[in-house]
Amino acid sequence: MKVTIAGGVHGNELIGIYIVKKLMRENFWLKDIAIDYLLANPKAIKECRRYIDYDLNRSFSQEALSKDSHIYEYERAKVLKKRLEDTDFLIDLHTTTANMGITIVLSKDDPLSANIAKILAREYENVKILRWFGTEEGNFINSCVKSSITIEVGPVCQGVLDASIFFNTLKVLKRALDILRKDEKMDEKVVCYDIYDYRDFPREDEELAGMIHPEFLGRDYQLLHHGDPIFLRFDEEEIFYEGEPSYPVFINEAAYYEKKIAFCLAKKNML
Amino acid sequence: MKVTIAGGVHGNELIGIYIVKKLMRENFWLKDIAIDYLLANPKAIKECRRYIDYDLNRSFSQEALSKDSHIYEYERAKVLKKRLEDTDFLIDLHTTTANMGITIVLSKDDPLSANIAKILAREYENVKILRWFGTEEGNFINSCVKSSITIEVGPVCQGVLDASIFFNTLKVLKRALDILRKDEKMDEKVVCYDIYDYRDFPREDEELAGMIHPEFLGRDYQLLHHGDPIFLRFDEEEIFYEGEPSYPVFINEAAYYEKKIAFCLAKKNML
Repeated sequence: MKVTIAGGVHGNELIGIYIVKKLMRENFWLKDIAIDYLLANPKAIKECRRYIDYDLNRSFSQEALSKDSHIYEYERAKVLKKRLEDTDFLIDLHTTTANMGITIVLSKDDPLSANIAKILAREYENVKILRWFGTEEGNFINSCVKSSITIEVGPVCQGVLDASIFFNTLKVLKRALDILRKDEKMDEKVVCYDIYDYRDFPREDEELAGMIHPEFLGRDYQLLHHGDPIFLRFDEEEIFYEGEPSYPVFINEAAYYEKKIAFCLAKKNML
Repeated sequence: MKVTIAGGVHGNELIGIYIVKKLMRENFWLKDIAIDYLLANPKAIKECRRYIDYDLNRSFSQEALSKDSHIYEYERAKVLKKRLEDTDFLIDLHTTTANMGITIVLSKDDPLSANIAKILAREYENVKILRWFGTEEGNFINSCVKSSITIEVGPVCQGVLDASIFFNTLKVLKRALDILRKDEKMDEKVVCYDIYDYRDFPREDEELAGMIHPEFLGRDYQLLHHGDPIFLRFDEEEIFYEGEPSYPVFINEAAYYEKKIAFCLAKKNML
């Protein structure tokens, strides 16, 4: 079985990058598994930026992969798609500025990936499962492979390392490899969250007009009710949530300001 | 008296940028003071990056200002120097990923600036005074004017807003303007911190080999003793502080990784 461990799909998310570098340097290996270490966006890593021209993790749609382009990440996506051809399982490491602990993101309905996520979520109190089956912006790198998990950890600022989160992420990554190697199975149902909608910041003529409300900041995975404060405008007016009870995630993720996502809304389900 | 309020000297430090935009939109004014609102690095603000070619807040040395160059920030520095010619007082707004609360940075030995810093530090519990008289990398924007304070707030990630910190910063900024307007004076001595040295991360062949130690992270302005842990290497080895007792600041500031500064060391003095 060939497992690819990817860091640096986003060049300013340092934890994944330095976990990959550490394991490469230590020649970390496991019986029965061939590990391919991937630093996915070398130019962006060098410049410590999320991307050079376009978000690499939205560059894997058919359209992007099929046309010639001057977008560095579109060209890079073609190279990566080829490299991932014989990968059986992809583990993609990310960080978020949101207070999401360790989130296992599942990007398609795949039993092998779901099984690993469930075992991790049962074993570690701070591990949650989030299903996010793609965006209109373009496909994730996971779309290249049959089975995968994204390990998304936070809160971590872009461009910095956090030692506690680094070693917690590494522990979960190694356990995921272990589950794969031993082909462990779990039949019980486990809680998961399904993203179904987004909310943008208040804006005026496209320009930001407010921020996440201080009472809402950091409350990822905590049930949000109709009438709860979500934004505080620069003019100090409060804005309240309208909608059905939901679990918010990616609250105040730095990279999503330009995507017009202040936070995502998820429903709680059983997997 | 003409006061310039600058945001966006670093394009990904959003709090200063949106405070300046808010005050401009509200036409905020004060009797007896002419306020000039400055968004210092428009290209970097648009791209939400610290800078395009070089750190604008290190682009004000004679050398940078005197030569023609293809460095966007060097050219921008010349424009700003001209614009600041008739400014009596500059208030420059910054954020840091370090846990520094609200820090009033003084960049030269100037009685008017020191007086304002002292009044603010006495009035607000979370306001500290830090003296930093320049770096070898190049001069700060403050070097253009006779009197100035930098308001440096954290912890805030690059590229995000934090509503509590936003409104606390605005409160301190408005109080600073008030002190200027009323020409308030304070004669008591107040604690201040003087940066006198830096420490880089552990590295191997230039490459990062470790992170801030979890027990050290967030302990800005807390006395650091010989033998205290400061770094945790990727191979899990701990590294301990060697040197005289000092007050660390800018611990794990994202923008300083490339400057080879893991944290700065300061001495406590009276101002």
